[in-house]
Formats: sequence, structure tokens, C-alpha cells
Amino acid sequence: MAQVQRMSRLMVKTLRDDPADAETISHKLLVRAGYVRRTAAGIWSWLPLGKKVLDNISHIVREEMDAIGAQEVLLPALLPKEPYEASDRWEEYGDLLFRLKDRKGADYLLGPTHEEIFTQVVKDQCTSYKDLPVMLYQIQTKYRDEARPRSGVLRGREFQMKDSYSFDTTDEGLEESYQLHRAAYQKIFARLGLDYRIVSAVSGAMGGSASEEFLAPAPAGEDTFADCPNCSYAANTEAVTFALSPVEGAEHGPVEVLDTPDTPTIETLAAHLGVPASATLKNLLVKVDGEIVAVGVPGHRDVDLGKLGEHLAPAEVELVTAEDFEGRPDLVRGYVGPQGLDKVRYIADPRVAPGTAWVTGANEDGKHARNVVAGRDFEVDDHLDVVVVEEGDPCPSCGTGLKLDRAIEIGHIFQLGRKYADTFQLDVLGQQGKPVRVTMGSYGIGVSRAVAALAEQTADGQGLCWPAEVAPADVHVVAAGKALQTELALEVAEKLSAAGARVLVDDRAGVSPGVKFTDAELIGVPKILVAGRRSADGVVELKDRRTGEREELPVAEAIARLTA
Amino acid sequence: MAQVQRMSRLMVKTLRDDPADAETISHKLLVRAGYVRRTAAGIWSWLPLGKKVLDNISHIVREEMDAIGAQEVLLPALLPKEPYEASDRWEEYGDLLFRLKDRKGADYLLGPTHEEIFTQVVKDQCTSYKDLPVMLYQIQTKYRDEARPRSGVLRGREFQMKDSYSFDTTDEGLEESYQLHRAAYQKIFARLGLDYRIVSAVSGAMGGSASEEFLAPAPAGEDTFADCPNCSYAANTEAVTFALSPVEGAEHGPVEVLDTPDTPTIETLAAHLGVPASATLKNLLVKVDGEIVAVGVPGHRDVDLGKLGEHLAPAEVELVTAEDFEGRPDLVRGYVGPQGLDKVRYIADPRVAPGTAWVTGANEDGKHARNVVAGRDFEVDDHLDVVVVEEGDPCPSCGTGLKLDRAIEIGHIFQLGRKYADTFQLDVLGQQGKPVRVTMGSYGIGVSRAVAALAEQTADGQGLCWPAEVAPADVHVVAAGKALQTELALEVAEKLSAAGARVLVDDRAGVSPGVKFTDAELIGVPKILVAGRRSADGVVELKDRRTGEREELPVAEAIARLTA
Repeated sequence: MAQVQRMSRLMVKTLRDDPADAETISHKLLVRAGYVRRTAAGIWSWLPLGKKVLDNISHIVREEMDAIGAQEVLLPALLPKEPYEASDRWEEYGDLLFRLKDRKGADYLLGPTHEEIFTQVVKDQCTSYKDLPVMLYQIQTKYRDEARPRSGVLRGREFQMKDSYSFDTTDEGLEESYQLHRAAYQKIFARLGLDYRIVSAVSGAMGGSASEEFLAPAPAGEDTFADCPNCSYAANTEAVTFALSPVEGAEHGPVEVLDTPDTPTIETLAAHLGVPASATLKNLLVKVDGEIVAVGVPGHRDVDLGKLGEHLAPAEVELVTAEDFEGRPDLVRGYVGPQGLDKVRYIADPRVAPGTAWVTGANEDGKHARNVVAGRDFEVDDHLDVVVVEEGDPCPSCGTGLKLDRAIEIGHIFQLGRKYADTFQLDVLGQQGKPVRVTMGSYGIGVSRAVAALAEQTADGQGLCWPAEVAPADVHVVAAGKALQTELALEVAEKLSAAGARVLVDDRAGVSPGVKFTDAELIGVPKILVAGRRSADGVVELKDRRTGEREELPVAEAIARLTA
Repeated sequence: MAQVQRMSRLMVKTLRDDPADAETISHKLLVRAGYVRRTAAGIWSWLPLGKKVLDNISHIVREEMDAIGAQEVLLPALLPKEPYEASDRWEEYGDLLFRLKDRKGADYLLGPTHEEIFTQVVKDQCTSYKDLPVMLYQIQTKYRDEARPRSGVLRGREFQMKDSYSFDTTDEGLEESYQLHRAAYQKIFARLGLDYRIVSAVSGAMGGSASEEFLAPAPAGEDTFADCPNCSYAANTEAVTFALSPVEGAEHGPVEVLDTPDTPTIETLAAHLGVPASATLKNLLVKVDGEIVAVGVPGHRDVDLGKLGEHLAPAEVELVTAEDFEGRPDLVRGYVGPQGLDKVRYIADPRVAPGTAWVTGANEDGKHARNVVAGRDFEVDDHLDVVVVEEGDPCPSCGTGLKLDRAIEIGHIFQLGRKYADTFQLDVLGQQGKPVRVTMGSYGIGVSRAVAALAEQTADGQGLCWPAEVAPADVHVVAAGKALQTELALEVAEKLSAAGARVLVDDRAGVSPGVKFTDAELIGVPKILVAGRRSADGVVELKDRRTGEREELPVAEAIARLTA
């Protein structure tokens, strides 16, 4: 039986005003309701109410992970450099990694994810095919030095995560471990009361093949996903790849160079020449592992650097800077055209097919060229789909116009395959007595981020509004203020607690009933029970936080209702 | 109902041999029994069995902290430099602190303890005397860059700790919070099954006044404590202070300088001159905040640098190096005497009282002096008790000869007072409407260290031997090997689990009964149930891991016995 939590003793200070720097609902409300407190940029303290929500989520995650036979462990957060150097991630993570040295000058990092260390643990503990499959998980503090930590606990630099890893000897085994996790995640997010979608995802810096994201739609989300209103297709926008039909080449006149003053944008250029933006060819310069590369897409579309990065991984893609133009007279800023790029690798959208003619930069200041024909005036080195998906783009599965929505990534499942096993030579003795290379999966749930996602999806104008299993209490008992009311409130609280309910009781003296009601709405416990003006008759008011429905009931009936 | 843990699926690999670098019982056995694995120096991974023990301990700690009304929170481990700079601990911690920079070059540290951050949280959340007292705790990963991380999880660089902090407006309130913690700690350590002593402690780098340590006696311990066999006195050796009676001064002849060849030690010097070692005066040179200071003690005693450091805190005490003698002809290495130390501060043991005569260095190479009289030939700037306590020294309380024992510090409680409240100006509005400065306590339990302490105290020649509430399971069921035995073992395991017991069952195929028995002893679950040769008759063997008592019983009776 959990103790009754008395507001008179609980460290919870509610605020009437939003924190100045808060933009998202979850940031505002979690701070205002006293769940979290900012300690540094992207680094948060979990106060008593927040810790309870965090624990409730962890408890659900733990139960469902245990149910699929995953074993809980706890690996360090402070990790030696060497395994991450072996996997190349010491470098690849760039500024995202917190790096430090110990007193002897040895290099360490704060773990952003633990593929390397789990691989080492399994290499040490498992030697035979009989020891596999094995699924391991931990709920642990993770670290990523985000460039713009924002949105409260939605994207922190220190955060709580459940990460798990599966180890199998066969591809079928990996598929099974992956499906077990997928099913467990569905149960977890359903129990959490989250509205979510499972979408195809790119594999990111993790490497590997099959991968899906669990996205909680919310305007505050930092991810955009494409959703087909007709079929079941849904994908992270970076994972949407268009199958474009080749364009028939036609006869075109010779290249013509035009003066194009005052046309700083594609729109002004197209208007000046009286052609649609889609007839122009936009060329973006990037650096791929330090080498300048040009990327051409039709003028009405943008380059998705994420998609480009995925295509070119593990090479690193950066934007060019002013310095990169120095000593490169062949690169004329704002007027780049592929017909003048002899020494530069040229990547283009599939629409830039041989025989198609374009308006593009003339490689001279203030000038553009028309009738620049692919395959005649320039060569495309690689055709890649790298454009940013737009609302209405055709669904790759059925062709219907896609919808775009914002969402919070709450979970991610990967079939890593043998990438890390190869790095660390993780083999076990197979049934035939020969070493078998292990294949891995990696699976994550953002536990602290789930708190924010739930707040985003469930809050209303009055405040937070938690689903039952996640809420810091089942019932919020409010003593309106008079001695008799406080007495009744405490009595009801004890009875509810004895019947197994988790109870928060607002027994604060010297706080007006109005403030207590406002606080109860803000804190967002699912049921509110008020010992108010009819306390002398043993009648209380019961209110549903979500629907706002309220009703007066005799105490015994209210207790029976709440503990049914 | 907890799931039955099947050894055939559990990631636990036992080892027959001790790890090469392991010196202590807990290090050897926790590794050999598959509880922990070393990831880097002083940085450990907790494998499934180890994680269970860690969780069981955390659960007990949590229950007892909740019972005294402490509220659980979770503060960050990655902390900004500024609050630790304000308290001077950014510097004071020296090399013990892991420091790092983020991508913007801002300074951070990995929290070794959280007084600063808790003070800030309370300053933010509590504004009135009505908000106090408050006690907050967390169970969290902590970091200390130990110079010599050793002994496995006994002294790691990353470790699990329960730290709590109390905030009161009065000294009486602090005393009460302190006593609540003291009582809770007694319950916790009793439930853990630890043999422990509560001893007076020095306050260390924490500052503040009253302080006690909870010590678990064990030969592997890094602390020594003095224990009176007659009265209740017990103290950390650094906290033992002798009340020495002043020595009556006598008439002495003039100082006499003697050639003392081949007397490199006090023992050889005393023998050469035919005096007891206690008649000689040993002078140790140290640097106090960079300035050279001499410390004199009778020749038969040693200087306790910890005690000296405590006396002089917050000044920092270091040993002198060869370079410190350069350009100091007044300091003759090995022949220092206080009569020649005009410009050096001289601290001495209370026995070096005015009028006492000593044999000491003559400040000339190869020479000593006799009849060097305190108050006549030299002055003592400060009389401080700084000698290392020795077995048989008189108990400060009753005079009986003290015993010295090794122990592991498993808990520490401090009355910090207003040190941190002063630093951060933590005031609340008092009952009279005026600001009142808050007074604090700080309390810690080494959760991961408690695992090691328990292993040290309870292990025997066969392996680990956990107390009931801490053990990774209640019953270890061993299937001797034949199909019928495995069937019975699994059946018994399920029945025990259904009756509420936590069960580990060794259902591994292809592992000999002998190996299974050895593993069961090594893993150390309190009760071992063997489905062996009499399985066909429904008779099993029940063994008590600690006493070794074994008995054959019908299955039903064994289950009844184990779940009584």
C-alpha cells in the first residue's frame, strides 16, 4: 500500500506563469506543475511528481521487456574511448558526443547509446550457439550534446532511455527478436496511453538495414512523417523515396546565356524568364568527406540533407562555407550550373534525366543559361532521390497524395545485422562446431521523452491530464479549507489508499479553494475528489479530470466508484 | 508473481578461476559468479544477477527512506561548474572530479555528491517556513575519479549511491532529520543483513559538524576504525583525538650536538644513543597551501595526514618533494630539528609540551642534537593531536586500550549546518515574517558498495552466500540432468513461483550435476533444491546454502517449507 502523499509536505510548487523560454506545451506545463526543474541547458531535475511519472513509465517498460524474455542489466554511462574508436563512432558522432579525460589523461565518453559495450559484454559471456538468442536491456541515463537543447525534457542533453539489444546466430532469429520488440513496444505505448504510428525509418548513424520508428504525432514534435491517407504507408520523411518514371528526351536548341539581373531566387528567375520553377535546375554545393560535390534538383524542390546523408553514409555531408569558394573561380556563388563543373562530382534528382533541358546558372556572375541539356551539356554522376518530401507528393506505395505531420520519436527499432559483430569479431561456436558470426538488433525507447510526449498529447487548457497508469496518483483529494473538510479529505484519502489507490491529498492550510482547484487541474491526476461545502453531510464531489464531468456522491459511494 | 529465471536462458557465465587482478573476496566472487563485468578501470557493468541484487538493495533503501517521509527525486549527474565553483568544491575536489566541456566550451562535471544542486532546487521550490522541513533523496549514478580504483565494485569510479539531504529552519529540526536518517539507516543495514558499527567520523571535505559513519567490518575494507572493548566508544581512526595530560617540565642541560653516523631510522638512532624511541622527536615536513610547515611527533608515533588535514581544512596538505628542498639550506633532509626552524611554522603533538627535552635533528648532515627543550630552544606554534592511532592507545572515553579493525564505509550521515545555505543564500520566510537561513544535513549510502560489503561479509569457501532479502532469488532449483529430473525441477520451480517465491532454476542441458552444484554454491542463493536421484519418487533434496544442512523431502513438503 502506497503512502498518501500530502501536498502540505510534498515538494511541489506550482507556477501561474509559463517559464519565459518555454515554447512547447510539455515544457510549460511540466515546469508550471512542479514536475521538473531546469538545472542547465538541456539538463533537468525530476522533482517528486515528475519522478513518479518517470517511474511509472519505467515500470511499464520493464514489465513488457521482461515479458518477452529480455534480461535487465546496467552498463556504465562513463565509457572508454577504444570500443567507440573501433566502431568509428568516436569520430562520427562529432560534437554530439560528450568527451572527457580522466586523471591519467585517458579518453572517455558519456554513452549516447551502447551497441559497442553490449557487443563486448556478449562476446565475454556467450561462447556457444546454446547461449543465444539473448536479449538484454537497461533503463539508463544517456548523454547527447545537442546543438539546440530545447523543448524541456523533449530533447535533453541528459535523458532517460530504455535501450535493448538482441543477439542471434541467424537472420531469422534476428527477425524474431525484432518482431518480439515491435510487439512489446506496441503494448508499452498502448499502456502508456500514447497515440502513435509505426513508420519506416532510415537507419541513421547506426548502420544496418530494417528499421522502424514509433512516432507520437504532436505539433511540438521535431520529426516530420509522411502519411498516406489511402493505404497503410507511413514513413519518416527522410525515408520516403520516390520511384520516378524516366522522362523522354526531346530535341533542344543550343545553350543560350542570358542576363538575369535582380533574380536572387528561383521564383524571381522563373518569373523573369516566364518559365515554371520546375523548369529550372537548382544546384546546391556540399562537402562530402571534405570534397566539394554539387547536387541538382528541379527548382521547385529542396534538397533533404538527411536523405542525402543517408545515401552517402558513412561519408559525412556538410554545407559549403564562404571559405570553400576561395581559390575556386569555377564555382560562382549563386550562378552554379552543371555544364561548367568539370572537376566536381554531380549528383542529381532522377528527373534530371538524359535529354531533359534546364534553365540553370551560367557560371558567370548575374547570368543564367537556358537549353542546358543533361547528357549533352553535362553528365550526371549519380541519380539519387534527395528532395524534401512535400505535402501531396505521391505515396510510393499507391500514388495517393501524402499528408505530412509533425511527431515526437518515442521509439526506434533497428535490425543492425553484423556491423558491430564484425567490428568486435563477435562469434559463437555453431551447431556444426564452427564459429558463427552473431547478428544484432538494437531497440530504444525515450523514457523521459515519453513523459513530454504524453504531456503534449493529453494536456488541455487547464493543465496536464495524465492517462491512468502513468499519472503520479490515481486520485487527487482536495480539502476545500475548513477543518471539517480537511478532516474528511484525510479520512477519505486514507480509505482510498487502504483500498489500493495511489492518493495525493491537498491538505494545505492557508491556501484558497480556488488555488487548490486550479492546482489540481494543472497537476492532472485523472480523478479529483473534493471535500467541499457538503462535507458535513458526508457528501463529496467527484470530478473526471479529462471530461470535466462532476457529480456529488456520498463518501462511501465515491470510494467504491474510485476503487472498483 | 515474478517469472521463473531459467539458467538455460539467463546470461550468467561462471568462472572457475579468480580474475588475475582481483585481491578481495567480493571482486573475485562477483566476477566468477557472473554478477559484474569490468568495462574499464573502476567502471563496471552489472549483469542480470548483479542487477537483481542492486535492485533488491535499492528497494529496501527506498522503502525506508519513504517511511521517514523523504521524497524521491532524480537530479542530473552532468552538472554545470558554477554552483561547485560557488562552494569552492570545483577546486577542492582536485583530481577526484571528472570535468568536461560541452560543444560550446562551457565547463561541466560529473556529480560526486549533490549538496550544491539540492540547495538550489530547494531555494527554487521552498520559500516559506511552511515548506520545511523537507527531506529529499535520489538513488543515482555518481562519479569519482579515484587514483587507484580497485577491489571491484567496492571502490569504483562510477557507482550507485543513495544520497539524501534535509532542510530545516532550526538546529533542533536538523537534529531531528539527522536522527530520522540514523534510525532509517539502522533499519536498512539490518534488513540488508550487514554487520555494521556506527562510529564518530570527521567531516571531511563536506564541511560541517556532527557526523557519523556506518562501517561494515571486513578485512578488505579501506577504512580503519578504533573500537573500545570496554565502553561504547567507536570512531574512524582519523576522528580519534587523545586528551593528553600536560607533561611537567624539568631542568635540562644545554643542547648537545652529536655525530650520529649510520642512523637512518628512529630505531637505529634510539639504539645508537641508548634512549627509547619515545624520547626522540620526529619532524615531518609538509606543504600547507603551498607553504612548508614542520610537524613534530614523538619518535615512536607516526603522523596521520588525514587527521592533520582535518585540523587544517580547508587548507590543503601535501607531502614535500625533493624540489622543495632546493634553495632551502635551512632544511637538511633527514636531520630537521625545530630549534633551527626560524621561518617555518611548527606544529607538534601535545606531548611536545613546554619544558620537555628531546633528541632530534641538528639541522646538519649526519648529526642529531640532545637536550633540545620545548619552550627554551624552540617554540611550538600549534599543539595538535595528529598521530596515527595505534592498537592499545587509550580510549578517549574510558582509557581502555583501543582495538583497531578494518571496515568498509557503507553509510555516512552529516549535520552540514549552514555552509551550503550560506553559499547560495538559502533563506525562507520565517514565522515572524523575516528571512531565516536554512540548515542542512546530508546522508549517503553506497548502494553498489553495499553489494560488495555483503559479499565480503557473507561469502564462504564455496562462494557467495546472500542474506534472504538481497539474494537474486529465494530458491535455486537444480535439475540434476536426466529428463525426468528436469521435468520435476521445472514443475517445482513453477509451483514455488506461483506461491510467491523468486526462483532460479538450473535447467541447462549438457552440464554435469557436479558443475551445477558448484555453480549453485558459487551464486549463493539461500536455499538450494535438487531434483536428483529420487525424482521418480517425488523426493527432492533441500539444502541451506549457509549452514550446509541438507535433507530429503517429498516435493509438496519442500514447497511448503520454502514458502512458509
